Amino acid sequence: MTPPRDPLPPLAELWMLKDGADQDVVVSSRMRLARNVQGFRFRARFRPDEAERLERHLRGALKAARPELQYASLKDLTSAQRDVLFERHMVSAEHVQEGHARGVGFSADGAVSVMVNEEDHLRLQVFAPGLDLPRVDAEVNTLDDRLAALVPFSYSDTWGYLTSCPTNTGTGLRVSVMLHLPALSFRPEAKGGQGEPGIVKVSKAAQKLGLTVRGTHGESSRAEGDFYQVSNQVTLGRSPEQALSDLAAMLTQVVDYERNSRAILVKEDKTRLEDVVWRAWATLRHARRMSSREALAHLSALRLGTCLQLIDTVSLRTLHTLMVAMQPGHLQQAAGRELRPQERDVVRAQLIRDTLGAA
Amino acid sequence: MTPPRDPLPPLAELWMLKDGADQDVVVSSRMRLARNVQGFRFRARFRPDEAERLERHLRGALKAARPELQYASLKDLTSAQRDVLFERHMVSAEHVQEGHARGVGFSADGAVSVMVNEEDHLRLQVFAPGLDLPRVDAEVNTLDDRLAALVPFSYSDTWGYLTSCPTNTGTGLRVSVMLHLPALSFRPEAKGGQGEPGIVKVSKAAQKLGLTVRGTHGESSRAEGDFYQVSNQVTLGRSPEQALSDLAAMLTQVVDYERNSRAILVKEDKTRLEDVVWRAWATLRHARRMSSREALAHLSALRLGTCLQLIDTVSLRTLHTLMVAMQPGHLQQAAGRELRPQERDVVRAQLIRDTLGAA
Repeated sequence: MTPPRDPLPPLAELWMLKDGADQDVVVSSRMRLARNVQGFRFRARFRPDEAERLERHLRGALKAARPELQYASLKDLTSAQRDVLFERHMVSAEHVQEGHARGVGFSADGAVSVMVNEEDHLRLQVFAPGLDLPRVDAEVNTLDDRLAALVPFSYSDTWGYLTSCPTNTGTGLRVSVMLHLPALSFRPEAKGGQGEPGIVKVSKAAQKLGLTVRGTHGESSRAEGDFYQVSNQVTLGRSPEQALSDLAAMLTQVVDYERNSRAILVKEDKTRLEDVVWRAWATLRHARRMSSREALAHLSALRLGTCLQLIDTVSLRTLHTLMVAMQPGHLQQAAGRELRPQERDVVRAQLIRDTLGAA
Repeated sequence: MTPPRDPLPPLAELWMLKDGADQDVVVSSRMRLARNVQGFRFRARFRPDEAERLERHLRGALKAARPELQYASLKDLTSAQRDVLFERHMVSAEHVQEGHARGVGFSADGAVSVMVNEEDHLRLQVFAPGLDLPRVDAEVNTLDDRLAALVPFSYSDTWGYLTSCPTNTGTGLRVSVMLHLPALSFRPEAKGGQGEPGIVKVSKAAQKLGLTVRGTHGESSRAEGDFYQVSNQVTLGRSPEQALSDLAAMLTQVVDYERNSRAILVKEDKTRLEDVVWRAWATLRHARRMSSREALAHLSALRLGTCLQLIDTVSLRTLHTLMVAMQPGHLQQAAGRELRPQERDVVRAQLIRDTLGAA
């Protein structure tokens, strides 16, 4: 079977462009399960051909469990296509870097993705826009159950699900939400810019609850554009229900804290806020070259301004579209060729101008 | 005689808003003469009442020599009005700081100004837009001749005109031009931003010719917005004609150098240039607060873009109007009250938005 010529779903269909609950602060909800298959070694200890054999096996199981999912072997994808998958959070940074017998199954809207031969044999992921933990919980468990009926997962009565890295052993579960926390990231100007932003307190509080706060792409990335991922850390000796309720309890507080901080900013320093928001709008619409870091910072400011109704020139959907489309892989995929970083900055600025000019 | 209620000419009449020769690079030409009056001590050694007596004397002479000039004693002006005079280059920074028996005579367009009791008894200044040294030369000398016929100036056959500070003794002449040198101020990006901008070479070459290159307000100010004042340094043992021709020769080269540098930028890095220009335009039209330093940098970029026809959204006259009107004294004069620096930034941004929105 030859892979489809362009296996990537169109941008306009992506789950992340849809509205969700509490979307002024909560960008998305995600649940991920790590699973390994009995009778196969962990990835680090694969024998020759074991990876290929497992990929074929899992691809077949996936087709049986969820026929509507597409599947792509990473080796069949161009570098830009793999980057596109990564930029849509459908595969991890590690997964796209090496193509050997790795693959990914995914739904047309990208909300469901299954990495094959990542760190674990299987990583099942379900996303939803806004705050919707019950939905991602239900969907990922349905998928898990169907696959478990077809493939015997490595499981120990003592340890739970066995995983390649012990930090996932037990539930194999990571539940996380992506939060937009611009007000908590603002340095209080009244104290001469020296005050501690609220996000520092959030991180400390999260740690005490066994949660972590990280940048948009997980472990190794910094929080760009004031987007933070909050997720559970403990998978061993704690039930999935406990992980979910810990996160949900923390979330309620963080969402309130961010909203209150925004309200205080609007009340006490509206001009400063409007200045940031309008400068972002103006710069995005007129710059002739722009790095993705700068673009994300401006899009973040516009997102805040839009949620606070300080500006109504652009929809959240358009902002979210740009956040995805302005990334290097998407730019190169759209251009149909590799772009040097300097070229990308020019193409990115053009895309943003075109998009916002018509917004 | 009571001073007029608002002795300041309206902004719209100012000489600096008019077109001039070579105005893409040369903002303005200026000639200044330092003169002292026989029978009066230098300012530093004034006896009680000597300053007042001299001011009355010179005010009368000025009225007789040029009846159309207005006259204001600085003590009769508000702090904002004195700042306005300074911001229009009609008085020096030193002159406005202390009001004791100091005054200024000036034409309605501000092109002629005569400081009384500054460092010297008299400082005669004439400005013209663009490059026009013969005009300012002729006008300042006509004024000098008329005053000399009414007031005996301190003069030595050996030294020439005697002045309070020996650096002015001799001709008492300072001839200067204000240049806009954005291309020569650009750091060459090709060398990783480490290359030496052309303005450094210009400064070195100027020194060898006995000329100096400084910021917009002379001695103690830095070059903001890429505006540089080039002036003669030597007043002793060199004729006014020599000072003029030295400066003129240097100018031809600097103007060519700047124009060539602009042409190279347009040819080799047009996107970078357009990026700077359009960001400046966008930010000026949308920011909600802005320092005068930032505003001047953006106005400078727009001036460059306008001269290079990269942008045609605004006239040079409007840009020059804003450069004057957005300064603290002008803002406070327009507001009719003192403004705290933070307030000024908000009022400035508003003025710029209003002006460019309708441009």
